Amino acid sequence: MSEQKPPGRSDASGAPLILITNDDGITARGIGFLVECMSELGTVVVVAPNSPQSGMGHAITISSPLRLYPSTVFSGLPAYECSGTPADCVKLGKHYVLKDRAPDLVVSGVNHGSNTSVSVLYSGTMSAAIEAAIEGIPAIGFSLNDFSREPDFSHIRDHVQAIARNVLERGLPTGVALNVNFPVRGPEPLKGVKICRQANAKWHEIFDERRDPHGRRYFWLDGEFVNNDTGTDTDEYAIANNYASIVPCQFDLTAYGVMKAMEEWKL
Amino acid sequence: MSEQKPPGRSDASGAPLILITNDDGITARGIGFLVECMSELGTVVVVAPNSPQSGMGHAITISSPLRLYPSTVFSGLPAYECSGTPADCVKLGKHYVLKDRAPDLVVSGVNHGSNTSVSVLYSGTMSAAIEAAIEGIPAIGFSLNDFSREPDFSHIRDHVQAIARNVLERGLPTGVALNVNFPVRGPEPLKGVKICRQANAKWHEIFDERRDPHGRRYFWLDGEFVNNDTGTDTDEYAIANNYASIVPCQFDLTAYGVMKAMEEWKL
Repeated sequence: MSEQKPPGRSDASGAPLILITNDDGITARGIGFLVECMSELGTVVVVAPNSPQSGMGHAITISSPLRLYPSTVFSGLPAYECSGTPADCVKLGKHYVLKDRAPDLVVSGVNHGSNTSVSVLYSGTMSAAIEAAIEGIPAIGFSLNDFSREPDFSHIRDHVQAIARNVLERGLPTGVALNVNFPVRGPEPLKGVKICRQANAKWHEIFDERRDPHGRRYFWLDGEFVNNDTGTDTDEYAIANNYASIVPCQFDLTAYGVMKAMEEWKL
Repeated sequence: MSEQKPPGRSDASGAPLILITNDDGITARGIGFLVECMSELGTVVVVAPNSPQSGMGHAITISSPLRLYPSTVFSGLPAYECSGTPADCVKLGKHYVLKDRAPDLVVSGVNHGSNTSVSVLYSGTMSAAIEAAIEGIPAIGFSLNDFSREPDFSHIRDHVQAIARNVLERGLPTGVALNVNFPVRGPEPLKGVKICRQANAKWHEIFDERRDPHGRRYFWLDGEFVNNDTGTDTDEYAIANNYASIVPCQFDLTAYGVMKAMEEWKL
């Protein structure tokens, strides 16, 4: 943890500084809930997209200008809405809004829908957290497997706060961000929290082919999630069994185990 | 390599089937060069974005329809231009254009500019390769550290073909895609090819703040690449020293080494 700033560094008021973003846009219910939760743990600043950014992965905006405006969505809190992606929000938040002062924690979400398994790669929620990890800032992406516009967050409040509190107190190894997923609220209470690996599952794509009013073909990308990973240590297993899952994620994609075998190649 | 289809499976003509995409758009010089190279190794199908998609990371298009039109950019070759991202192109290429027949190889690029270190996360070129890896298809993203509109590719032709030929003959472990970067052509010939890890470097963001003609503030995202990783086994070291770099990349982001320590957390 040598390169990461020590956990628990706080602002002049003694409270940790927490930067909040998401990918569903600044008016989504999930970020409102997250702001409520985090306001009890520290000083909150919000920089979030001004429109939904689901599926944006780790996109950044380099070919068009970015806009950033003060937002009145959260009364009494410093909040900004940004025309860019979740990763842009973290960059603008740290370098412009916070004037290069690193927050003590970046939290992203709560995403409307889960981001387990390979969805971590497509997820704007997690790309914001990973962007923070690249900057050496402890970060957490939260997602709830509930796609309704008015999800019930009541069963996850204590867990969201406990996970954030642990990260504020303990820090995270440099370059690691947490991918936290919760099951939809069911008849039984949550069974607990499991530390998991990313399930080796995938989306089976389905393209819904249609014709527009001018007779031209277009496609909607749709898909079916297929999980052939039978491990009981995966994020998919956890949320399917009424646990919250936490996958510690890194941004070093190197497949170290493969490097040695490739030295044999004739190149 | 159990889940991956065997390498070298070929089409009715006996030639391997190669799907080509990129992130600079179907008219970029880099994909033209790659089509030339791959046409000597197999049967080529092109599905590429109809406009530049640099910095799109692993974005996919889920909130708007996708368009796909036959393209005449490559005479005599089956080619399609797509309104979506590089990852969309791989999905549409496999599931729609190739009617769920898996190609023997997916190649992406040649990107105009390098995609070393953390740039792998922002890179549309590499997201296409990683999307193929998720599908269990051997894949390579090629990038050349030359930002001119008419780059000199002459020094990389033999290497691009040799790397692709190796992958066609040997396959790749399931879930692995290669991130290949070449230095710009210099006065000396390339020294060779190094198998590398992803350098632990990052972009230091700079936001260029301006006013539009209406007096409203906007920002250009710019940055300076900072490499404090002194290892000689990194992709950055390789291309800075006139070697080509190959980083085998995986899409499992789990930080396995961190899981055990987190079991101690009070959650």
